[in-house]
Amino acid sequence: MNEYSVHKIIETIKPYITEIKGEINIKTTVRYIKPFEQVDEYSLDWINSNKKEKQLMAHNSKAKVIICDNEVEYNDTLKNDGKVLLCVENPKLAVALLGTHLFSEKYPEFFHPSAVIDNAAEIGKNVFIGANCTIGKCIIGNNVTIHPNVVIYNNVTIGDNVLIHAGAVLGTDGLGCERLVDGTLVKFPHLGGVKIGNNVEIGANSYIAKGALSVTSVGDGTKINGLCFIAHNVIIGKNVLITGQVMIAGSVEIGDNVLLSPGVVIREQVKIGKAAHIGLGAVVTKNVPDNEVWTGIPAKKFEK
Amino acid sequence: MNEYSVHKIIETIKPYITEIKGEINIKTTVRYIKPFEQVDEYSLDWINSNKKEKQLMAHNSKAKVIICDNEVEYNDTLKNDGKVLLCVENPKLAVALLGTHLFSEKYPEFFHPSAVIDNAAEIGKNVFIGANCTIGKCIIGNNVTIHPNVVIYNNVTIGDNVLIHAGAVLGTDGLGCERLVDGTLVKFPHLGGVKIGNNVEIGANSYIAKGALSVTSVGDGTKINGLCFIAHNVIIGKNVLITGQVMIAGSVEIGDNVLLSPGVVIREQVKIGKAAHIGLGAVVTKNVPDNEVWTGIPAKKFEK
Amino acid sequence: MNEYSVHKIIETIKPYITEIKGEINIKTTVRYIKPFEQVDEYSLDWINSNKKEKQLMAHNSKAKVIICDNEVEYNDTLKNDGKVLLCVENPKLAVALLGTHLFSEKYPEFFHPSAVIDNAAEIGKNVFIGANCTIGKCIIGNNVTIHPNVVIYNNVTIGDNVLIHAGAVLGTDGLGCERLVDGTLVKFPHLGGVKIGNNVEIGANSYIAKGALSVTSVGDGTKINGLCFIAHNVIIGKNVLITGQVMIAGSVEIGDNVLLSPGVVIREQVKIGKAAHIGLGAVVTKNVPDNEVWTGIPAKKFEK
Repeated sequence: MNEYSVHKIIETIKPYITEIKGEINIKTTVRYIKPFEQVDEYSLDWINSNKKEKQLMAHNSKAKVIICDNEVEYNDTLKNDGKVLLCVENPKLAVALLGTHLFSEKYPEFFHPSAVIDNAAEIGKNVFIGANCTIGKCIIGNNVTIHPNVVIYNNVTIGDNVLIHAGAVLGTDGLGCERLVDGTLVKFPHLGGVKIGNNVEIGANSYIAKGALSVTSVGDGTKINGLCFIAHNVIIGKNVLITGQVMIAGSVEIGDNVLLSPGVVIREQVKIGKAAHIGLGAVVTKNVPDNEVWTGIPAKKFEK
Repeated sequence: MNEYSVHKIIETIKPYITEIKGEINIKTTVRYIKPFEQVDEYSLDWINSNKKEKQLMAHNSKAKVIICDNEVEYNDTLKNDGKVLLCVENPKLAVALLGTHLFSEKYPEFFHPSAVIDNAAEIGKNVFIGANCTIGKCIIGNNVTIHPNVVIYNNVTIGDNVLIHAGAVLGTDGLGCERLVDGTLVKFPHLGGVKIGNNVEIGANSYIAKGALSVTSVGDGTKINGLCFIAHNVIIGKNVLITGQVMIAGSVEIGDNVLLSPGVVIREQVKIGKAAHIGLGAVVTKNVPDNEVWTGIPAKKFEK
Repeated sequence: MNEYSVHKIIETIKPYITEIKGEINIKTTVRYIKPFEQVDEYSLDWINSNKKEKQLMAHNSKAKVIICDNEVEYNDTLKNDGKVLLCVENPKLAVALLGTHLFSEKYPEFFHPSAVIDNAAEIGKNVFIGANCTIGKCIIGNNVTIHPNVVIYNNVTIGDNVLIHAGAVLGTDGLGCERLVDGTLVKFPHLGGVKIGNNVEIGANSYIAKGALSVTSVGDGTKINGLCFIAHNVIIGKNVLITGQVMIAGSVEIGDNVLLSPGVVIREQVKIGKAAHIGLGAVVTKNVPDNEVWTGIPAKKFEK
């Protein structure tokens, strides 16, 4: 169990703090972020800015350290309870930062004995490989966590601080076919690989194919949720947020900071510009310029 | 192999029987429900009400016990073959009940030695855990069947009589992110859990995320098919039928007795009212009232 | 490592060669097809017909044997480098054929010790079963490759030359339910099986349900990509190309040579005629005649 002083909490989110309300008791410590109903005196609590009863929530919280916005007033009730308010513009972001840096589960350096790891795999430091994984001839960086039942084929390179959830499959064959005159499908060879950057997350039961003759790549900081399909030769930029059950067909290129909403389908070879947002369930059939919001089927620029 | 008397068959579906045609021979027994072409004298056979040649099907069947509706007439041909007709309004329902109560495959109490089970897991009676499963710090009820390669993370509670198919992942991290000004995605901590009620079925390779700070829950009697995505904080009622490849985004609430057709996508925080039906491939972007049928993209109320 | 003479290469694609430009040096051999940037003198190289700088690509290639179309001219530069051009109408098809027949990865006959194989399973020659697979009471043909973490339930028959990728689940229960008056879902029994033809490929984390009382079947030469859902009682013809994340509901019938684009959803009991093409993300709600192209939601015949 970790235990942090209020000073450590403040230090972690310092650039985002606009005001500290109340006095810091050096005896106050924080051990965890808990579900609302389980918050106790050792919890860090937080109040989302969109809540109506923010003042009341601050009064009722059992926590001593509360992240909230400036609208919550410091008064005798809070003072008598020895509470301190760390005010920020976006409390959810502050909690996300604290969760990531102080409270996320750390997995030890460990290869489960049931994992099948190719002798030629190059694996960095502080790597956790869960039960029943299969790891091919790969290069895996440092501080990587691989949950159970993940399968990584040969020729996959994974950066540092990557998190891969259960059942994901990386580096499988893509499926591009040519047809003979009699209809027979002839599969184009898939001889490329997969390159995953640093600080990437890949969700449970997701699928990433190797490139046909090149590399399917996922940029630094990109987060991919579960049941997503990333086809061969796809090139994904940095800090792209790919939500659940997204389908990205072959050779698609996705710029930095893009958001793909749940259930999006993208046609092969389409380019999605930087910081574009694609709406829920959209089917994207042509290139999307930078910074635009596209929705619908087929997807078009969304005008308010 | 089980072997049931006609009386046992009748007892199991008694409330649904409108008439018994023919005499019950106490020597007649039923051992199984079989695919049509394999029906023999020890099979239970049935005739769907929408068939055109119901009388002929009854004559041709090799079975002695036939579930059908009242329109099939009892005559000398059936009598000479020693057949008995158990007439019900909905033969398919009667077969489903018999299948569930008498003929479904029972798995023994057994933990496959290759399954990796956390020492702190609390597991009830008559639980089958298949090969290469990973079971975290969970609570699992009685009469639960878990097929091979299922991964259950920590903090998942599972009721009684639950059936989980191969490759399903329960309790994985959801993925909610905040963005820093430079685009960096910061993941919100996922510290909640998953609660699965009694008599639930979860299909192969489906995904159920834990709640961020609360619990993702699935109500009693709900059936979820394969490749479904149930995001963090989703609350699903009782007896909901979720067909294949359905995508339910974060914090959605689904009432009792709802039907979600294949390929449905539901926007985060939407509420689906009780007994609503959502049509094939619909993309639901706003709340659906009780008992309504919604279809299309974006989904709208369906008017005949 | 394989090493092939130019004659062997020519023999393999002979019916497709329209012209051979340059002399065949009997010392020239080919060892592999490589990603573009890794092409060397032992590689087979190819130039796609849609490229603009085909002549330049031929000059720049480090390979000695180049598959291209007739537009590339043979000149002294190519001659001095000892290159030979094998001209075909569709270079991509020729490479696909060579990849399939000469350069695809062969897996040895091997059952990984961690695979759990039912004693009653009947398994042919040259079958590779990867780590952490579970194989029920099945019949598996010759030259079958099953990647890690595949689960095959009982009553599945698999032909020859089949390739199944990681995490696929075959023969799981479908999910058809009847409702009681109080809303309770009663599952119809699933007692059928799955039949996979010869030369079939099934992608990673895909799902194929057994039939309720019959057989779900996949015809010879059909290729299914990852995260696809094939429901109970579906009948798929020969040489059907099913791309990623396709959803085929119960009892659908699909003719030979059909193409289903990414993200397609097909309503239960619909029939798709031979050689029909279904476009990206289409939701098919009624029967599609032979040879037609259907797109959109709901899908309609596409007229140029």
